[in-house]
Amino acid sequence: MVQTRNLLQELLSTIADFRPKFRSDKDNTSITDLSKNLLGVDDETSQQRIGKLILGKYEQLDEDEKKAFFQFLTDEMDLDSHAILSHVKDYQHHRDADSLSKLLDASEPLRQDFLRRLNQVAGATEVLVNMRADLLRFAAQDKHLKIADLDFAHLFTSWFNRGFLTLQPISWHTPANILAKIIKYEAVHAINDWDDLRSRLQPEDRRCFAFFHPAMPDEPLVFVEVALCKGMPNSIQTVLDERDENLIGDEIDTAAFYSISNCQRGLSGVSFGNALIKQVVSDLAKEIPSLKHFVTLSPLPGFAKWLQDHKEHLSQNITDQIEQAAASVLEISDYSPLDKHSGVLKSLAAQYLLEAKRPDGQPVDAVARFHLRNGASVYALHAGADISDNGIKHSYGVMVNYAYELPHVASRHENYVRDHKLEASKQVTQLLSGKTTSFFSQTAKTE
Amino acid sequence: MVQTRNLLQELLSTIADFRPKFRSDKDNTSITDLSKNLLGVDDETSQQRIGKLILGKYEQLDEDEKKAFFQFLTDEMDLDSHAILSHVKDYQHHRDADSLSKLLDASEPLRQDFLRRLNQVAGATEVLVNMRADLLRFAAQDKHLKIADLDFAHLFTSWFNRGFLTLQPISWHTPANILAKIIKYEAVHAINDWDDLRSRLQPEDRRCFAFFHPAMPDEPLVFVEVALCKGMPNSIQTVLDERDENLIGDEIDTAAFYSISNCQRGLSGVSFGNALIKQVVSDLAKEIPSLKHFVTLSPLPGFAKWLQDHKEHLSQNITDQIEQAAASVLEISDYSPLDKHSGVLKSLAAQYLLEAKRPDGQPVDAVARFHLRNGASVYALHAGADISDNGIKHSYGVMVNYAYELPHVASRHENYVRDHKLEASKQVTQLLSGKTTSFFSQTAKTE
Amino acid sequence: MVQTRNLLQELLSTIADFRPKFRSDKDNTSITDLSKNLLGVDDETSQQRIGKLILGKYEQLDEDEKKAFFQFLTDEMDLDSHAILSHVKDYQHHRDADSLSKLLDASEPLRQDFLRRLNQVAGATEVLVNMRADLLRFAAQDKHLKIADLDFAHLFTSWFNRGFLTLQPISWHTPANILAKIIKYEAVHAINDWDDLRSRLQPEDRRCFAFFHPAMPDEPLVFVEVALCKGMPNSIQTVLDERDENLIGDEIDTAAFYSISNCQRGLSGVSFGNALIKQVVSDLAKEIPSLKHFVTLSPLPGFAKWLQDHKEHLSQNITDQIEQAAASVLEISDYSPLDKHSGVLKSLAAQYLLEAKRPDGQPVDAVARFHLRNGASVYALHAGADISDNGIKHSYGVMVNYAYELPHVASRHENYVRDHKLEASKQVTQLLSGKTTSFFSQTAKTE
Amino acid sequence: MVQTRNLLQELLSTIADFRPKFRSDKDNTSITDLSKNLLGVDDETSQQRIGKLILGKYEQLDEDEKKAFFQFLTDEMDLDSHAILSHVKDYQHHRDADSLSKLLDASEPLRQDFLRRLNQVAGATEVLVNMRADLLRFAAQDKHLKIADLDFAHLFTSWFNRGFLTLQPISWHTPANILAKIIKYEAVHAINDWDDLRSRLQPEDRRCFAFFHPAMPDEPLVFVEVALCKGMPNSIQTVLDERDENLIGDEIDTAAFYSISNCQRGLSGVSFGNALIKQVVSDLAKEIPSLKHFVTLSPLPGFAKWLQDHKEHLSQNITDQIEQAAASVLEISDYSPLDKHSGVLKSLAAQYLLEAKRPDGQPVDAVARFHLRNGASVYALHAGADISDNGIKHSYGVMVNYAYELPHVASRHENYVRDHKLEASKQVTQLLSGKTTSFFSQTAKTE
Repeated sequence: MVQTRNLLQELLSTIADFRPKFRSDKDNTSITDLSKNLLGVDDETSQQRIGKLILGKYEQLDEDEKKAFFQFLTDEMDLDSHAILSHVKDYQHHRDADSLSKLLDASEPLRQDFLRRLNQVAGATEVLVNMRADLLRFAAQDKHLKIADLDFAHLFTSWFNRGFLTLQPISWHTPANILAKIIKYEAVHAINDWDDLRSRLQPEDRRCFAFFHPAMPDEPLVFVEVALCKGMPNSIQTVLDERDENLIGDEIDTAAFYSISNCQRGLSGVSFGNALIKQVVSDLAKEIPSLKHFVTLSPLPGFAKWLQDHKEHLSQNITDQIEQAAASVLEISDYSPLDKHSGVLKSLAAQYLLEAKRPDGQPVDAVARFHLRNGASVYALHAGADISDNGIKHSYGVMVNYAYELPHVASRHENYVRDHKLEASKQVTQLLSGKTTSFFSQTAKTE
Repeated sequence: MVQTRNLLQELLSTIADFRPKFRSDKDNTSITDLSKNLLGVDDETSQQRIGKLILGKYEQLDEDEKKAFFQFLTDEMDLDSHAILSHVKDYQHHRDADSLSKLLDASEPLRQDFLRRLNQVAGATEVLVNMRADLLRFAAQDKHLKIADLDFAHLFTSWFNRGFLTLQPISWHTPANILAKIIKYEAVHAINDWDDLRSRLQPEDRRCFAFFHPAMPDEPLVFVEVALCKGMPNSIQTVLDERDENLIGDEIDTAAFYSISNCQRGLSGVSFGNALIKQVVSDLAKEIPSLKHFVTLSPLPGFAKWLQDHKEHLSQNITDQIEQAAASVLEISDYSPLDKHSGVLKSLAAQYLLEAKRPDGQPVDAVARFHLRNGASVYALHAGADISDNGIKHSYGVMVNYAYELPHVASRHENYVRDHKLEASKQVTQLLSGKTTSFFSQTAKTE
Repeated sequence: MVQTRNLLQELLSTIADFRPKFRSDKDNTSITDLSKNLLGVDDETSQQRIGKLILGKYEQLDEDEKKAFFQFLTDEMDLDSHAILSHVKDYQHHRDADSLSKLLDASEPLRQDFLRRLNQVAGATEVLVNMRADLLRFAAQDKHLKIADLDFAHLFTSWFNRGFLTLQPISWHTPANILAKIIKYEAVHAINDWDDLRSRLQPEDRRCFAFFHPAMPDEPLVFVEVALCKGMPNSIQTVLDERDENLIGDEIDTAAFYSISNCQRGLSGVSFGNALIKQVVSDLAKEIPSLKHFVTLSPLPGFAKWLQDHKEHLSQNITDQIEQAAASVLEISDYSPLDKHSGVLKSLAAQYLLEAKRPDGQPVDAVARFHLRNGASVYALHAGADISDNGIKHSYGVMVNYAYELPHVASRHENYVRDHKLEASKQVTQLLSGKTTSFFSQTAKTE
Repeated sequence: MVQTRNLLQELLSTIADFRPKFRSDKDNTSITDLSKNLLGVDDETSQQRIGKLILGKYEQLDEDEKKAFFQFLTDEMDLDSHAILSHVKDYQHHRDADSLSKLLDASEPLRQDFLRRLNQVAGATEVLVNMRADLLRFAAQDKHLKIADLDFAHLFTSWFNRGFLTLQPISWHTPANILAKIIKYEAVHAINDWDDLRSRLQPEDRRCFAFFHPAMPDEPLVFVEVALCKGMPNSIQTVLDERDENLIGDEIDTAAFYSISNCQRGLSGVSFGNALIKQVVSDLAKEIPSLKHFVTLSPLPGFAKWLQDHKEHLSQNITDQIEQAAASVLEISDYSPLDKHSGVLKSLAAQYLLEAKRPDGQPVDAVARFHLRNGASVYALHAGADISDNGIKHSYGVMVNYAYELPHVASRHENYVRDHKLEASKQVTQLLSGKTTSFFSQTAKTE
């Protein structure tokens, strides 16, 4: 099955090559006039012709022109609120399809029809996703533009409906153009070069999976890297470092998701990560019956900052230990000097994950929010687990295994969503009970 | 290119085989309760689980239960018109994304979110298209149900956006499961059996193309059958009858579209035929440089009825000639006896196509409306051109070539849409000038 | 895996379409002159050009011309026996590569080089296989031509080496052009039409597999049809008749190979059936862990004739019973009347299979020889198991299950090859012990 | 077509992944005993089992053991020369298939049957090709082993018959595992890294094609890199250096083959390069009608050595000019200083290519022999055309365009093969006429 899907990727990529490029150099009409024209014609051939011109023009706009274009979309392609008022009343009165149809038409901003018309052009979807990435940049400065973004977001939710996505394995047999994008989009543990990539894809005990959309076959939407292990991995070094032998067959009992990256800023808010993890868990469980555990190996990206912010609440003794632990991480080659301090770090990390909350009651840590909301639990903490610059800087080298236990995923998700209730293993909750962490727990809990 | 797309078809079909079947025998919750539940959970895993149950339940409903389900969708998943009123005013006041977002949410019937959630399930799209086919049947009796249909139609317009469709050649190398559907869906000139199918697909001078959607890889949406000819074909017999030799290479100057069939009743109103014809014209023009003409060979499905309806306006002489022409069609083997009467039939057919109009100013003939609206012209008329039972019964054996002339397609489309102006060749308009047809032209024109 | 292989088929088929047709109408050189020319040029381009001409010419030869061509191959492209004599002595003297090279060259008939040169042309392999089918027809009449056949056979053994074949599943998703050939080549239980074919391919508990060679992607070499059953099937009717429900999952414990057909007469003597069965057994065992038994459901094609030939040795009583059994088979709808006579038929069939031997010690029955040599055992006999005309005529309706038991296949094969020792189950050997069959066992055994 | 073939590659690669690895650790039988056993069993299942053991054993042999194994193949699996003698006489007497069959059997060394049996194992072909690469290494030292090589060579000629190879485009969409091999096997202009590879594959005006064999889908056999140009390229720098824009469409008039590499040492003597070039010429001519010229851009690998060898025949003046030319090549950035000396280099290069001959009458230069034998002509010479270390060292920076002119290829090939006659353009032959080169032409011609 895995192989077939890989081929789909190839096949779809192939087709993409034949897509017309959008060249509109020779047309002098402005992009806004073209956009109005597009809404004015009802012949598909004309729509496609004008649509191509618009897409071509857009790709040549400079920043100011793009911003002006989004202003135009925001201001000139809105819905007709007066018409809505009148049609709502009609519909309240008649309750029939005719009046509802008019109401629905009136209450949809023109932008949506505009975007659907653009999307008739082969290859347009990718340009529109990039267009929204631009729009989001501008909207971060000018909140008014968020109006236009609502329609992008609305349509993308329909277009990128889970049922339209295909899960595809990424391997050393995947076409290079896709792999080049995996290198580019990896957001957690940077892929240094093609040899690094190869070491993550080629071994039989390493896997990678991505979601693709049929209209963007060359563009992964999200991907996850998986290490098949014997036992739970307690550091990213053991996962990424060179190994002499691969695990085979029944030795394997754990699938560790050690990196998950969203690829398209233009699809922000249309989330795929949760569905990806669960699909991969389900597929791997079928393929490899010896698999017992599905865990992540995740960073605590806000841990170091949180510690800094609460330094004044910590005793000198604790602070010293943290500094020594962090320092020792940097010196060591075999991690052993770390051991004597790692207890402190793990206890603090447990407190950070389980007790440091945002005002809305969810954990401060973004990665924790993602996995806990998905229905995972906090399973284990490891000090000295990421000794890269980034790992030290953001997480003091600590990493965490979140566990996806299929029988409990739905109920944990519900508990989290309803009550922000977290599930943690005994070995993690025990880390809270020591003296070390009680120090500032009151403060942290109530921030 | 053609071949690659064919493979895509195979590949996607293959994947479809792995789709989970929807079995929901063991769950006793009613489909309406499940539907409410689906809207109540926000975990994707739970949504998919409930979605599968709903799809499985639906496929086991009897007619009355289906109707009740659609009543439920219509009545209980509507939009909130009171909320719309309040949010419209907010938006008029604030003009910001927050208030617009609330307005958009309120003005979208719950059904749309319901359908999007269902569509997360792999394989759901096909079930939803069939669900709408059911709904349309019921809505034909109970107009109230058209309310629910608006949301199906709205979503399908986004989901089946032209940019998401793939054109794929259908050939004798196409998998049998797809070909079985071509046999089933052919709506113009029935395919009698697999030998008949083979004779339409295997010769080098015969082509067939279909649009597919990636989420329904086993289901063609629309397909067109094409004969590559030397000169314009003047009867369906010459196209479909057995031939000893195929045309090759430069002899070919004409592509004749002799059959176009929509496959999915559930996609009614989401039109693909126009786009299909134009894509095929464009692709064939590239592939076969010797092609000069792109025409249809089309029936006049309302011709016989129209003649009957206007019999009283015809002189006995004309009526006799028509009857003789029709009779001779049935007797002949070499079509020659027809010649002496065919002039009358062709003249009447010209009048039917060019002058018989609906109150809205468009032609009475549905096939004519389709092609003329697409930007085609009426190019030639042929008597004795379809001597099948159907051909005699509906069209008195007359067929018409509509011509797609690329340089004129856009302007003809615009003329038709704006003024219902038709374009016809001189050889067709001349048929109007004879005495024969002047007889009842006043009446016909003004009906 | 299965699906991937199916795709390979599609893909290779696709490529085959682009193969140049062999047209040689315009060249007046005779095929024998062209053949000499082919051996005379050493430029690949020229070789391919001449090769295409020869292949095109060949396809237009009539029977007499073909025969003459094979005479030419036999007489004019032989090896040089005088050169062999001289080079053998050289090699005996020198024992070096130079002298061996000359010896090898001399001892290879020119035909082999001729055929290799022809086979450089894309698409040639299929023509050459058909050419040998022709040759075998002529050689059956004119043994001298068998000389030429030795070289075809020798090269085909290399070209169609097991390592070059691919096993591909045949399903209802297989391209129609391949399926049309399955219908054509089925040699055991004729496939009446496409509906019949569909009923053998589409159900989840029916399978079909074929070997293909990459150079003949549209041509299956051999295929086997498999029914997945609960228990061993005791008649071909239960396998082929329409059924309401398919078996799913763990119910399945038996894979029954009910038809195996060689497709290419031109590959006669290059046997694939044994390898096919064993590959399919191995693949199915992996895919469906609940499978316990791999058996055939086979005819006894020589049984009726053998009985007729030994009639004089049978008592009137026995003969009567046979006739009644056969007659009852023809009358019955529910097979029950057969029961009282079936014991006789089964006993005689057991004797036929186990004791009727050719002078070389192998069973008289060709199908028995095939499976027993492969390492199968005689597992069960069923009367009234094939009530088709053919089944009655050749086998008096009796069928047999040969069992492929993987742990014993190799040793049974060895025993069979070394000593012509057969393995039969107790239920079959017990059939021999009754009085019925003892009657003429002496005679039969020693014929 | 190009795309389809690319997919084939993917597909075949995919299948290869499922190949059983050859593990034979647990069997203690020696490889020579296993080899004898393989010849002794006639059951395919047993043959495959033993074959896998042999292939597994072989891959673990050290150098001495490999050599001993080849000795064994050479000495113990020979043909039976006594039997040949007797069977030749029989055949001379009987002239029938029986006696010929015995003769053919006797005159085929056992090694061929041994290799065919090994090749039944899935994945064996690649191991056997590598095995021959080993054998050739040993045979270079020990000529006796060439005896065994004759059988490898003989079988490979049949197995790798042109008709069984598939031409596949190599692009940036090709799977990474194949591309990694392109990097590894490039033998003319080394590919430094993946960025270098990408710059050779991704631009629209760059192409690469390879031959593959279906049984070795992950291993290219030979590949050629092509630059589509406007005019003939006069240096490898212009081909390989970064460029801002790609050529598109009708600008392109020349396809330059700038690198061709054989990949498998084990297929030495089974030549593919000629067929590859001609197939690519033919395919590109169809795909890009604006192409007028098909040329190489080739090194003169023996030029520098040849000049050194004949130094004593050159005047001091000439020698100085050569040294200055070579030196200037190394200093320059814009190549212009070279101009004043390049005339000398080009004249000497012309003399080297056209007049320096081996005793057998063919050119001294190996690359020249390859292309001229293929039917190409010497079209143009360029100084300063390869300023890489290798280019300077072996060719003094000179490169040559060989032209493949389709209408003349066959006759030029014939002329070359028959008379060693070369074809050169006027611009090249004129280079010979100057005083410079007349100096040592007598000597060079007759060496």
